[in-house]
Amino acid sequence: MVRYKAIIAYDGTHFHGFQRQPKGRTVQEELEKTLANINNGEPITVFGSGRTDAGVHALGQVIHFDYPQERPVERMRFALDTQTPEDIAVSAVEIVPDTFHARYDVQEKTYHFHVQIQKPRSPFRRHYASYYPYPLDLDKIREALPDLLGTHDFTSFCATGGSIEDKVRTIYQAEMVVSPDGKELTFIFRGNGFLYKMIRILVGTLLKIGNGRMPADSIPAVLAQKDRNAAGPTAHPEGLYLAEVRYKEQVNKE
Amino acid sequence: MVRYKAIIAYDGTHFHGFQRQPKGRTVQEELEKTLANINNGEPITVFGSGRTDAGVHALGQVIHFDYPQERPVERMRFALDTQTPEDIAVSAVEIVPDTFHARYDVQEKTYHFHVQIQKPRSPFRRHYASYYPYPLDLDKIREALPDLLGTHDFTSFCATGGSIEDKVRTIYQAEMVVSPDGKELTFIFRGNGFLYKMIRILVGTLLKIGNGRMPADSIPAVLAQKDRNAAGPTAHPEGLYLAEVRYKEQVNKE
Repeated sequence: MVRYKAIIAYDGTHFHGFQRQPKGRTVQEELEKTLANINNGEPITVFGSGRTDAGVHALGQVIHFDYPQERPVERMRFALDTQTPEDIAVSAVEIVPDTFHARYDVQEKTYHFHVQIQKPRSPFRRHYASYYPYPLDLDKIREALPDLLGTHDFTSFCATGGSIEDKVRTIYQAEMVVSPDGKELTFIFRGNGFLYKMIRILVGTLLKIGNGRMPADSIPAVLAQKDRNAAGPTAHPEGLYLAEVRYKEQVNKE
Repeated sequence: MVRYKAIIAYDGTHFHGFQRQPKGRTVQEELEKTLANINNGEPITVFGSGRTDAGVHALGQVIHFDYPQERPVERMRFALDTQTPEDIAVSAVEIVPDTFHARYDVQEKTYHFHVQIQKPRSPFRRHYASYYPYPLDLDKIREALPDLLGTHDFTSFCATGGSIEDKVRTIYQAEMVVSPDGKELTFIFRGNGFLYKMIRILVGTLLKIGNGRMPADSIPAVLAQKDRNAAGPTAHPEGLYLAEVRYKEQVNKE
C-alpha cells in the first residue's frame, strides 16, 4: 500500500457537501468512484481534511488515500483530474509516509468568503458569492476584525448541535479585501481549526456590524457570552471556499 | 404606449439561447413572463439586439419593449431585476422614442471570448470560459489579429445555413488580453455586426494559429477564399459573452 496525498478544487454548487452520505452526490463519493475505476473496481477510501457543507467550494481541499501500487504521481494526478467529473479538479498529488493523515495532521486551514455588494446582483456570481445589498460601513468591519485574532473560546460562533466539546481555537489571520472594482468583499480567515459553520457565523456577524446593527467593538463581549444567540446570522454557504490546508513541516517535506 | 430600452446581463448556462422557441427555457421567454406579470397578465413582446446561442452569456444585451403606462425607470428596473430569475440581471432601464429599435438601430457590438489555458482546468470556469490545454504561441495570435480589422467579406467565418446574403462586416477592434495570472485569455471583438457563429470561428481559427497548425499570416488568404472550410474550428459557446451594444448617438441621448 502506498499513501497518496492530493490537493483538490471543487465547485460545491452541485454537491451535497464533501462527505459521503446515503442520499445526494458528494465529492468524496465521486473521488472514490474514480479511484475504484482506476484500481480495477476495487474500492479505495478517501479521507478529507474535513467536511464542507452543501454549496461550499474548495480551492485547496486536501485528501489522502492508500493505493495498492506505487504509480508516478503526475500519472496519478492526471488520471484523477481527467476521470473525475468536471466540477472537481485534482491539482497536485504526492506520495506521503503511511503516518500522514489528511484530517488528524492539519496544522492550519485558510478559508475565503466572498460577498457580492454591487447592485444589481451579477448573475455570474450567484453560486460563488453571498449577496449583501444593504448599506455597509467597511471601516466598522475593519475595526472589528482584529478582535477575532488569537486564542478564544468560539462557542458563540459555532452552530449548535455539534459534538465537539473543546471550542477553543486560534485565529492567525482575519482580513477583508475589497475587489479593485469595489463589487466584492473577500474575507480571509486562517486558523488552527474552525468549528461547525464558524466562518459563516463570523461573516454574518461582521456584516451585521458593517450594517450598523451591532457595535464595531462588540466582538469581545460576544466571545465572552459563549452563546450562539449573541453572534450575528449565518452567512450563505455559496460564498465560502476552503482555500488552503497546511500540515506539519516534516510531513510536507516528504 | 411607452417604449423602454433595458440593458440586461445573463448567465447563459441554463438557457437555450436568447430567443423564444417552442422547447427549452430562453431569456426572451423569462423576460416576457416577468413583464406580463407586472402588466396584470397582459402579454408584452421583448425585442433583443440579436440572438445569443445556448450557453452564450451576456454582460450588456439590449432589449426594448412597449409598456402601456409610463413608470419611473428605476422602479421598472427594480421590478424586472428582482422578478426575473436569478440568472438574469437588469442593470439599466430608460425611456426611448417610439422609433428606437433594439435590433435595427444597432451601430456597434462588442463581444468577449474567454479561453482558459491553465492546467489543470479550474472547475469554477467550466461554464464561463472555453478550455484550451494545448501549446500556444501567443505572439502568433498577436500577429494575426490586426489582419481581421477593417471591412471584409467574412463568408469564411460564418457558419453555413444562415439566411443573410451580405456577409461584409467591419471590425473596429480585435484584441487579446492575458489575465494577470496568465491563466486565461480574453479576446475582444468590436464591429458593426457579426455573422452567425462568427466570433466563435474567429477564436477557433486564432487558437489554431497559436497552436502552430495554421501560419500566423493566413487570415488574408482565409478571407479571400470565402469558404467556411478555410477557417479553423468553431470554439465552444461557454466562452462567449455579448459585452456591449452601442446605438446611434441621437438615440442614446434621449
